[in-house]
Amino acid sequence: MGLDTDIEKIPKHLLKTDDPVFEFNKQIIDATKEFCVAYKPNLAFYESMGASGWGSLRKTLEYIPKDCFTIADAKRGDIGNTSSLYARAYFKNMNFDAITVAPYMGEDSVKPFLEFPGKWVILLVHTSNKGSEDFQLLQTREGKFLYEEVIFASQLWATPDQMMYVVCATQIEKVSAIRMLAPDHFFLMPGVGAQGGDLKAISKAGMNEQCGLIVNSSRAIIYASTKEDFAEAAGREAKSMKESMSLLLNEFY
Amino acid sequence: MGLDTDIEKIPKHLLKTDDPVFEFNKQIIDATKEFCVAYKPNLAFYESMGASGWGSLRKTLEYIPKDCFTIADAKRGDIGNTSSLYARAYFKNMNFDAITVAPYMGEDSVKPFLEFPGKWVILLVHTSNKGSEDFQLLQTREGKFLYEEVIFASQLWATPDQMMYVVCATQIEKVSAIRMLAPDHFFLMPGVGAQGGDLKAISKAGMNEQCGLIVNSSRAIIYASTKEDFAEAAGREAKSMKESMSLLLNEFY
Repeated sequence: MGLDTDIEKIPKHLLKTDDPVFEFNKQIIDATKEFCVAYKPNLAFYESMGASGWGSLRKTLEYIPKDCFTIADAKRGDIGNTSSLYARAYFKNMNFDAITVAPYMGEDSVKPFLEFPGKWVILLVHTSNKGSEDFQLLQTREGKFLYEEVIFASQLWATPDQMMYVVCATQIEKVSAIRMLAPDHFFLMPGVGAQGGDLKAISKAGMNEQCGLIVNSSRAIIYASTKEDFAEAAGREAKSMKESMSLLLNEFY
Repeated sequence: MGLDTDIEKIPKHLLKTDDPVFEFNKQIIDATKEFCVAYKPNLAFYESMGASGWGSLRKTLEYIPKDCFTIADAKRGDIGNTSSLYARAYFKNMNFDAITVAPYMGEDSVKPFLEFPGKWVILLVHTSNKGSEDFQLLQTREGKFLYEEVIFASQLWATPDQMMYVVCATQIEKVSAIRMLAPDHFFLMPGVGAQGGDLKAISKAGMNEQCGLIVNSSRAIIYASTKEDFAEAAGREAKSMKESMSLLLNEFY
């Protein structure tokens, strides 16, 4: 579940509390934790609040149950010594399990994140936005899409136990094609819910023997209601999505 | 000048102050401001310090003289609604003049930063690290490098008054080639100093009629000395680099 917590969108009655962003997250986590395997705070939402946002993020991370996987949706990537510092920020100082990383700067921008045992890099491959067509779908001289080149190259940098891929949930034929190229990797799939991805279709196209999918929903759950019943409504949405997933797991295994 | 301020590298006597990172930056700025046109804090260094790092960053930004240009070296880029929040964080809440942005996610990941009048996007084109070869130098079916495709596409998104390009200072023939493709854009050039770029060669290859270059140096200046005389040493380095630039400006204009 994506914790894209926007101070301008959360229920107004929370604004009276000391830390409205954390209060919102806390109630959302309480209402959804029995249905979720992973929480993914989107860093932009916390950065936009400055130092107080970092406080809210840290408290949120500490509040997430220890048996849930945690993903810093940061889309970082810089020269080696700088990526090392981002890794320190999210893996050591904040103890996230995983971070999303952008591939444009290549191997030495990704490697520092891989030096933390037990942590995961989730590399952008094929994203769910319109602009993904601009560069990710450029074809190289060898007839490959750029995003395929990212898969080929990155498989030399890390094992499927260290790296996952961000794969768009809205283009089913691409999901199948990427699964062929990366049979063992987990895919983090945004785009289900608000962005229109279909859970059954992506399960069929993307699942591997270990399931291999982490399907993300953010706004469709956390803003299911913007009134005082927001947490209850989020719980209902999360439960409903979990039940859909259970049915699909039973169907395919 | 890059403010890549690492708590583990600054002189030990500063660790006794309330906010060592800000204290270091303050003394560095005092010693270098008469020689610098722009300051570029590298966000990773502040993020690695958590909430206190954000406090140090905010104080640093407020301390930079108003006639200096300020660049958030953030290398952000995400789907539209998320990039909007990054833009809010750095252009509205923190009032930076410019931010570095990664292009992998395409147009809608860059556009939200362009909606702030008078602010600048500095787009990654050809970076100075080894990994720049992995994807930036892939050739497309049309025989272009990926970084050239980034230049072609992004020139449709923004004018040279809204966008600059990050261009590596260590490969002179690429600087000339990129100048041909983008005659009017400013280039932010890392890689001079610690990374080996040659100021005279890049000036010859990259200058346009308005100069068109912002040449960055970080570690070579701010860590010129790691003792109590660090600010004085940084001032000397900055002065020397400014004098080299003045000579080149006189030579070429």
